[in-house]
Amino acid sequence: MATIKDIANKLGIAVSTVSKGLNGASDISDEMRQLVLDTAVEMGYASKKMRTANTRKVCILIENMDYENVEQFGYEIIVGFKLSAARRHWEVSVVPANLTMQSLDKYDTYMLKNGYSGAFLLGFTLHDDWVKQLGKTTVPTVLLDNYIERNNHVGYVGTDSDEGIDLAVDHLRSLGHTRIAFLNGSKNSMVSEQRHQAFINSMMKHGVEPDEKLMAYGYYVPDCAKDHVPGFIENGATAIMCASDLIATGVITEVVKHGLRVPEDISVIGFDDLPIASQFVPSITTIRQDRIDLGKSAFLLLDGLIHNVTISKLLLRAKFIQRESTGRT
Amino acid sequence: MATIKDIANKLGIAVSTVSKGLNGASDISDEMRQLVLDTAVEMGYASKKMRTANTRKVCILIENMDYENVEQFGYEIIVGFKLSAARRHWEVSVVPANLTMQSLDKYDTYMLKNGYSGAFLLGFTLHDDWVKQLGKTTVPTVLLDNYIERNNHVGYVGTDSDEGIDLAVDHLRSLGHTRIAFLNGSKNSMVSEQRHQAFINSMMKHGVEPDEKLMAYGYYVPDCAKDHVPGFIENGATAIMCASDLIATGVITEVVKHGLRVPEDISVIGFDDLPIASQFVPSITTIRQDRIDLGKSAFLLLDGLIHNVTISKLLLRAKFIQRESTGRT
Repeated sequence: MATIKDIANKLGIAVSTVSKGLNGASDISDEMRQLVLDTAVEMGYASKKMRTANTRKVCILIENMDYENVEQFGYEIIVGFKLSAARRHWEVSVVPANLTMQSLDKYDTYMLKNGYSGAFLLGFTLHDDWVKQLGKTTVPTVLLDNYIERNNHVGYVGTDSDEGIDLAVDHLRSLGHTRIAFLNGSKNSMVSEQRHQAFINSMMKHGVEPDEKLMAYGYYVPDCAKDHVPGFIENGATAIMCASDLIATGVITEVVKHGLRVPEDISVIGFDDLPIASQFVPSITTIRQDRIDLGKSAFLLLDGLIHNVTISKLLLRAKFIQRESTGRT
Repeated sequence: MATIKDIANKLGIAVSTVSKGLNGASDISDEMRQLVLDTAVEMGYASKKMRTANTRKVCILIENMDYENVEQFGYEIIVGFKLSAARRHWEVSVVPANLTMQSLDKYDTYMLKNGYSGAFLLGFTLHDDWVKQLGKTTVPTVLLDNYIERNNHVGYVGTDSDEGIDLAVDHLRSLGHTRIAFLNGSKNSMVSEQRHQAFINSMMKHGVEPDEKLMAYGYYVPDCAKDHVPGFIENGATAIMCASDLIATGVITEVVKHGLRVPEDISVIGFDDLPIASQFVPSITTIRQDRIDLGKSAFLLLDGLIHNVTISKLLLRAKFIQRESTGRT
């Protein structure tokens, strides 16, 4: 592992200057500090603070995800993470990330600069600069619903979509449905691809050939329903499974606009079990992701990575919750 | 949750008799004790000991797996599990299981009787009585390399075969091999099926059509090599990947018997990185499963299940270890 002296030699500057750069002293230029930090990261230098993890500071970096109140997807995930972290005496900072931040510092530099021993990334996409850098990071990092190949420092936490979707298809088949549509979330998301495949597998397992006309990618917002529900209805769907509860609310609204009733004419199933699922009228049958447990598990995984237990994937069970939005065909 | 009184009512016996049955008192008959225990389990009774987890006792049940010395597969798994358990002040019993034991008591009864809050099952197969009962168990249970559907009390820990096998195929392709054979472990094992699929996927990804004549199921012992290596050689294999290091030792012996050299004529890759892999001549290139980490992770998972965090799967990274048994074609 590189020392402060190695960094000084490489840059041809004094050890004291390197030390100032690493410790954020104000009497060197910003450019020099950045150069020192970037070089330190490149050379695999880990500060004593990071190595001994005395500070025990980790962060949740969050982007493209609502988390400010309990109605929103990220809220309980953060609560769960903090609960587990507190029990092990770790300090957690919640940091909203954005593109500017990601262009200012490399991921590893940002983490080193702020003395974080690890991070949990929420809502990032594969297009984000920092996610692109994760193939090579040495900072213990956990991603929700995203997987990075061949890097022992990065782990993936999520919910087992296969089992969740299979439970939902089971339920619809037991109610007599065969014309089952699936309105997915955004394309180019790992979790959407997984759910697409899980839906196809489960339909085949239940002896129903999935129909291309009844499968579509949308977005994780209610509004995407209007682009796809008319086509589903035209093609004889009697049930519509959705990749989120928010999508399901949009689907129900759209079905009603067509003069049809939920569940008498069309059954609808959500995903996540956000508070809206039980509050909506009709209340929404859904596949629950336990967000408190996702947060707790993310911390467990991160704690493992920090202690060199190279966990790759940690998946939680999905729970099927039956409510009013599904009925006999 | 059922109480001692509920059990007494159901059986039409005194509360004191139930209590004796549950606490292993000697002044009731064995038959009565068994009846009390079985009824308690059926009715979902959990003893106060189990509920409050005051005793903090878990067990490792082990079958069909060598673990007595450091050369053997199970040894470090148990060490890792105990390390993690000790840190959280849990007591661990290692219990060799066998068919008789499994026929004497139901799984849940055995666990209740012995006051274990959870178990880690090693080496069990899907045919075992106790594994068959896991679909309905309420005892927190972790399985190595086996998955039970739709039960929130059971989790699966293992190594990510996909990535491990992909790293090995990468290596062989970079050495110019296209005629790559795969000698798998026993059929009807979940992990063998996974590795079979992982091998096919990785070969396709590397632009090589897998050849049925170069893929076979054997057993997890060196001796199975003699049944398959001659066929592989006949069909032009220049490299043989194996589902364990023990199989790889058998394969190397068999290749040499045919007057061929490893790696000059045929490259061989193992799986696991048991001590034998580095000690063998030639030393064996392999896909490492970190068994200490498997044990640690199994405990993390079990601890999660005991605290109602319903983890379904926890997979570790595989590490590729290059040694002398592979070379250019």
